[in-house]
Amino acid sequence: MPDPATPAGDPAAIGRYLNACRELVIAEIRRIIPADRPRRSTLYDLMLGYPLREAKALRPALCIATCRALGGELGAVLPSAAVLELYHNAFLIHDDVEDDSLMRRGHPTLHQAHGVPIAVNVGDAMLALSLQPLLDNIATLGLGPSLRILEAVARMTRESVEGQALELDWIRRGEWGLEDDDYLKMVEQKTAWYSFITPVRLGAIVARLDPARIEALAEFARRLGVAFQVQDDILNLRGDVGAYGKEIGGDLWEGKRTLILLHTMRSASPEERAEAARILALPRPSAGAEAPEDMLAHLLDSLVEGAELTPAGRDRIGRALAGAGTARPAAKTPAEVRFLEQLIERHGSVEHARGVALAWAGEAERAFEACRAWLLPGVHRDLLEGLIDYVHARVR
Amino acid sequence: MPDPATPAGDPAAIGRYLNACRELVIAEIRRIIPADRPRRSTLYDLMLGYPLREAKALRPALCIATCRALGGELGAVLPSAAVLELYHNAFLIHDDVEDDSLMRRGHPTLHQAHGVPIAVNVGDAMLALSLQPLLDNIATLGLGPSLRILEAVARMTRESVEGQALELDWIRRGEWGLEDDDYLKMVEQKTAWYSFITPVRLGAIVARLDPARIEALAEFARRLGVAFQVQDDILNLRGDVGAYGKEIGGDLWEGKRTLILLHTMRSASPEERAEAARILALPRPSAGAEAPEDMLAHLLDSLVEGAELTPAGRDRIGRALAGAGTARPAAKTPAEVRFLEQLIERHGSVEHARGVALAWAGEAERAFEACRAWLLPGVHRDLLEGLIDYVHARVR
Repeated sequence: MPDPATPAGDPAAIGRYLNACRELVIAEIRRIIPADRPRRSTLYDLMLGYPLREAKALRPALCIATCRALGGELGAVLPSAAVLELYHNAFLIHDDVEDDSLMRRGHPTLHQAHGVPIAVNVGDAMLALSLQPLLDNIATLGLGPSLRILEAVARMTRESVEGQALELDWIRRGEWGLEDDDYLKMVEQKTAWYSFITPVRLGAIVARLDPARIEALAEFARRLGVAFQVQDDILNLRGDVGAYGKEIGGDLWEGKRTLILLHTMRSASPEERAEAARILALPRPSAGAEAPEDMLAHLLDSLVEGAELTPAGRDRIGRALAGAGTARPAAKTPAEVRFLEQLIERHGSVEHARGVALAWAGEAERAFEACRAWLLPGVHRDLLEGLIDYVHARVR
Repeated sequence: MPDPATPAGDPAAIGRYLNACRELVIAEIRRIIPADRPRRSTLYDLMLGYPLREAKALRPALCIATCRALGGELGAVLPSAAVLELYHNAFLIHDDVEDDSLMRRGHPTLHQAHGVPIAVNVGDAMLALSLQPLLDNIATLGLGPSLRILEAVARMTRESVEGQALELDWIRRGEWGLEDDDYLKMVEQKTAWYSFITPVRLGAIVARLDPARIEALAEFARRLGVAFQVQDDILNLRGDVGAYGKEIGGDLWEGKRTLILLHTMRSASPEERAEAARILALPRPSAGAEAPEDMLAHLLDSLVEGAELTPAGRDRIGRALAGAGTARPAAKTPAEVRFLEQLIERHGSVEHARGVALAWAGEAERAFEACRAWLLPGVHRDLLEGLIDYVHARVR
């Protein structure tokens, strides 16, 4: 593995480390894909679609850095790191179907480009292919560590789907009466388990760290993971596209529950809260779609000389279309999203989230201090430590 | 386990055996679901949704019967049998999303009832929960058999998603120039591997059968699985709802590739083939949906006195709506589906499929004969053998 310069505190160095891991892991995924592919099938080409897009490869990097900072070997940890990337991308593909997202990493989502059936199956295929490399670990790592890795992955997938279910249930019930703790617990299950806790655990298991120390490192990872997600919520509102890499304000348009928005909802007056909940329940406008009423008005204009839609007529068409199941409900308008932004501003919710992110980063730092002495000094330990600084730097 | 009467040749007895297995497996799935459920989450209730519907539980029954006919114990095989049922139902949920099916086993599909996001996640959760019971096998079965089961499951999931990808690629390309062998290979991967081959393999591994004999039984299962699917294709066209349990003719409405239809396409004249391909590419009519043009005509009638849609006007509206992405293309009509039925009739394609199903059932019988001597006589061996007779009886 190319040894990038020490990343501590330096985002560019962190970027170089992540990139090096990304290339290693993509090569490993290519090895995992069966050589005797079914002829003419697009399945395995599509499996590489998301991993080959511009991505951080944070999970494999955390896994590799942990293993190597504990004296473990790169070759020993690579298959497990690649499996984490397979899981991550399978979750992304299914998430994109679930949210009907249009874009992912600068390109159309897989189901936009190839349809829902193929996208769901490609995600399933990535989950399916992740088992064999973990069984192959037995030959290289021995039985004990390999079984511990399998147990950790079983736990990880359970936590992820439970966290996802929590969030989907909130959306379905239109639930906004949530405390910080409800949100942070969901984030821990949905995101931290597979993005932080399990990568660090697998790296430590491969390096044959003893169980008590593995738990100490996992606790660091849990706190770092929560801090990262809250930081992400803040950047989604306040970042700039270049540094953040995603659409600014996207969470508001999607009506996503974030620590920020939940704080606003708790702080707002009953009237503000009702209005905000109404706006958040509206879908985001679809790209290039005309409202059905407008489309009808245009058609009427061109079909029936002199025909004009009265407000009552428009209303009637709207209701009829809604009843027939073809109309979408009205979408959020820019003015409505501005209303949400101003409400957030007025209640100081970004500052609240900033405080929470920094507190969790601080907790992560303390957890890391407890491990620091038995981690080898060098680029790998620096990466782990550098990620804490990274949260601090971006949140401020 | 209740010992049902010998099922050989008797569909009612086979039904009783399957039912007994179904109840055992549902109880086992309840044990697999974590006791410390997240509060207020609907995830685990929804996981039981499909398994609790009227279903055959063929896969667990095959697994249990194989194990017990080899002297293995029920308690030893139940977790693996339950995992097969979890996989099967996860595939069904994702298949229903992929095909946008309306009904499953007499009730609305999961995504119709709870939305695509929750349905995709529930399927993922069932896949996620299937790993831990296979790891827990180590404590009860010992390491060797448990690892062989994990390897068999890894192979099974790979075959299933590859088979599914083959079929999805055909649909996407509008591919109808396929030989029987192309279809049978797809069926073997998509259906026989997880519904027949792997259940029999897992049962045999639990009973500690030697590898050569496991392969002999797997070959029986492979042939039986292919025979079953071709039989299913025939019953879909020629069965009666009561015995078949699904909609008669559904495959034609869905434009599914079957051995029957592929034979018709190969036998038809170029003109017939082109017309059939055009019809098959049309979607099936959605339940209760009015065509957009009809809806508009009704609206116009009620809005604009004396307004009437000319044929050119209807056409124009249809194109405009299609351009705006809200209209569905025209759906198959009953007359068009009758055209397909008559084409199938004229080319003797059902008889062709019947011959193939009986040939594969005969091959399965020969494969079973090679195993018969080392299977314990009794209800479990009778179930395995009875399934061959079952294909014979239903296809004739």
